[in-house]
Amino acid sequence: MGLKFEFEIKENNEDAKYFQIYSHIRDLILNGALPGGSKLPSIRILSKDLNVNTLTVINAYKMLEKDKLVYKKEGSGTYVLPRDKELIIDDGMFYFEPGEREFGYSYGEDVIDFTSSAPDPGLFPIKDFKKVMDKVLEEDGASAFMYHTSTGYLPLRKALRDYSKSYEIECSEEDIYIVSGAQQGIDIIAKATVKNGDYIFVESPTYSGAVAVFKSRGAKIIGVPLLSDGPGLKELERLVRQFRPSLFYAMPNFQNPTGYTYSERKKKYLLLLAKKYDFMILEDDYAGDLSYTKKDAMPLKVFDLDNRVIYIKSFSKVFMPGLRLAYLIVPEGIRSKTADAKIATDISSSGLMQRVLCNYIKDGILERHTKYLKKELAIRYLEMVRAIRKHIRGGSLIEPKGGLNLWVKLPMGVTSDKLYKRCLQKKVVISPGVFYNRDDMGLFHIRLSFSGVSVEEIWEGVSVIGLEIEDIKSELSN
Amino acid sequence: MGLKFEFEIKENNEDAKYFQIYSHIRDLILNGALPGGSKLPSIRILSKDLNVNTLTVINAYKMLEKDKLVYKKEGSGTYVLPRDKELIIDDGMFYFEPGEREFGYSYGEDVIDFTSSAPDPGLFPIKDFKKVMDKVLEEDGASAFMYHTSTGYLPLRKALRDYSKSYEIECSEEDIYIVSGAQQGIDIIAKATVKNGDYIFVESPTYSGAVAVFKSRGAKIIGVPLLSDGPGLKELERLVRQFRPSLFYAMPNFQNPTGYTYSERKKKYLLLLAKKYDFMILEDDYAGDLSYTKKDAMPLKVFDLDNRVIYIKSFSKVFMPGLRLAYLIVPEGIRSKTADAKIATDISSSGLMQRVLCNYIKDGILERHTKYLKKELAIRYLEMVRAIRKHIRGGSLIEPKGGLNLWVKLPMGVTSDKLYKRCLQKKVVISPGVFYNRDDMGLFHIRLSFSGVSVEEIWEGVSVIGLEIEDIKSELSN
Repeated sequence: MGLKFEFEIKENNEDAKYFQIYSHIRDLILNGALPGGSKLPSIRILSKDLNVNTLTVINAYKMLEKDKLVYKKEGSGTYVLPRDKELIIDDGMFYFEPGEREFGYSYGEDVIDFTSSAPDPGLFPIKDFKKVMDKVLEEDGASAFMYHTSTGYLPLRKALRDYSKSYEIECSEEDIYIVSGAQQGIDIIAKATVKNGDYIFVESPTYSGAVAVFKSRGAKIIGVPLLSDGPGLKELERLVRQFRPSLFYAMPNFQNPTGYTYSERKKKYLLLLAKKYDFMILEDDYAGDLSYTKKDAMPLKVFDLDNRVIYIKSFSKVFMPGLRLAYLIVPEGIRSKTADAKIATDISSSGLMQRVLCNYIKDGILERHTKYLKKELAIRYLEMVRAIRKHIRGGSLIEPKGGLNLWVKLPMGVTSDKLYKRCLQKKVVISPGVFYNRDDMGLFHIRLSFSGVSVEEIWEGVSVIGLEIEDIKSELSN
Repeated sequence: MGLKFEFEIKENNEDAKYFQIYSHIRDLILNGALPGGSKLPSIRILSKDLNVNTLTVINAYKMLEKDKLVYKKEGSGTYVLPRDKELIIDDGMFYFEPGEREFGYSYGEDVIDFTSSAPDPGLFPIKDFKKVMDKVLEEDGASAFMYHTSTGYLPLRKALRDYSKSYEIECSEEDIYIVSGAQQGIDIIAKATVKNGDYIFVESPTYSGAVAVFKSRGAKIIGVPLLSDGPGLKELERLVRQFRPSLFYAMPNFQNPTGYTYSERKKKYLLLLAKKYDFMILEDDYAGDLSYTKKDAMPLKVFDLDNRVIYIKSFSKVFMPGLRLAYLIVPEGIRSKTADAKIATDISSSGLMQRVLCNYIKDGILERHTKYLKKELAIRYLEMVRAIRKHIRGGSLIEPKGGLNLWVKLPMGVTSDKLYKRCLQKKVVISPGVFYNRDDMGLFHIRLSFSGVSVEEIWEGVSVIGLEIEDIKSELSN
């Protein structure tokens, strides 16, 4: 007994037919609708049902097999693979070639860079910063340069407690820990909570900088396939029961790299699972402020009634990366371990910067600047979406309506690593999906960040990408 | 067949006789002169040889037993213990009581604090700093606030290459990595080189912040007993053969907490051992600049012909802790792992601070400031030694002639934890030896840092410590 597929092949859809079949079945598997062990319809029957050539179905099944979603039993048919060990991400270090690409690396003046999710330096509030800095140096003097308490400068922790309230997060200053950027926050939480051999869940695709941290502590990483409204719930619960993770690292709003936002239902269900199966969630709210609609994105932490969520918020995106400051909201049970981990990591964050940020928040400059930044980034976002719709023909895109990144599905046959290399020669830099996920999803997607480029660069750069895609396509059909 | 002890009990020595016997035999064991399995002279013979009461020898042997240096075989005698598992430091986290003491914690205005090894804030070069900062903000503007390359701001790396030359260390800018303070340097090197289950050697006593890092990575920590001119060489080689460490964390100049400096012979021998037994040495040169004699302390790195030394130098002590900057000199073989570890740790250090430090070094201000600081600290050092000699009667001290700390042996029977609590009540804070070492050495020593206190505070504070010691002594004799 196979199962009936209720979907239609669209003749005018630009995805080739076999890719439509592949995508549809893939989503069913990842959503949990097709559990491990399910038998797929035979090639003969499916091709008849869908009115396509048998070769089309064969190609679709081949792709599913390559994704390790299904397997063939000789003489019996094709089955959904029970998913376990093969989910382990065993290569989570940075995929950048040494020397070629690292944070802070500049490709030069004449390069259009769609890889940086830091804001355009033209948007940095340098003047405000200098004013606040002068005030701090004058008023605080030498105290600003002593060691500061590892948990953070108390007036800043209080200011962040109030700031969190504006995002509907209720917490006390005791819950708040200052760290030197979100990456350090992840590292410190890993030190406080992750032991050798633990299973850690991450979204797939995800930010490789987090995976690197967990792997460095000897954890086993399980990638939970991400759909456009969050992980498939059945699949997620199945994986949780199987692996019993200690931690789930998630970016529920405007996820990196996909831009996807979890539905509120999925946010709440994830919290239920965390309680039921006793794991913590590390919420990296790296861009939650940046909603370009009237509706704000709600942090998972808002719904966290059982203290399951460790919350990280960076100021690299809404202020300046060079500030190197972020904060954690830490549930009581792991506070003292977190404090110890911070000391072992770098003793304390820069007191001078903490005092500057504190004044910056208290004087209302951060709020004003965030508003300004959102307006500026919304313009770039809209232009970017338009440029992609116009120039990347046959590609597709789920519009995130917020954040810093767009996750573009490439037209059939065009692979992200090839496109990356081609564009680089034309002085346009993109992030190939393989940086975030090594299966077919990564291979057929690119991440385009729009926050570090001007509107002119957006149109020029995306048209270059579009031309390269057309070139690759025409080479494929020859 | 025992062995003959060639030493004399000094009647006018303020240490009790049994403590003299204990100290002498302890040194012989730790120096390697008495290997594991050696039989000590019988109590009867030794008391006769030394012309002391048998009870005196019994007490000395009891202390050695408590230190786990010797053991008694029933009906046979006392033997030197083959030293292995019991050397593992299994409790390397911070011994501070939560909330009571952490980096940056201030005990209040009216407290004399001998625990901080950061310089007196009155010595911070705030005016110079502000001048350089203004220059950077004006000239570099927004670039100072972007992500910087993880390895560090190149002009700073070049400046540090030249700076290192002034300490006779030859290296290229490629060898230099900028990190956010020495603690982070230790953490990054641990990430790059330490695996779960590795044996790591540290000096005993040592800086607990380093032990915490290694333990957090699942390493087993072996404390190598430190003598006033470095580890006992025979003992060290024996331990190396037994445990095959991957890394030795060492502070060969003005060690923390003891202030001891390795002899040049021991520095060179340590390097030979590292080559012979294939381990790396992490040299934490936290205070090497601060020699108060005409002779500069030579970093181990100067003698490192086989690239066995990873060198860490902080600017917290000679500049300001609030700068949060240090640098590593990294042998080629572990460079790419170190770069990956830095990214996973916090992506990059503050670009603004790196630029400020860079200008500060290039303009010769650091050199000038270090000279000034040395002069100021030398005064405090000399006053501190005098105050201790005067007020801590029956204590003893090996004068380090440099650095930031004095390691004071307390008079017989006075324990460091008790003294710590007593002094705290009198608003004088000291570091009890048990923070650094949990055997009798820790119990009978205190660390006094003199860099964060004025000359007046030194005399006032040390006299309080002296009075408390006298009180404890008189309680003991009642």
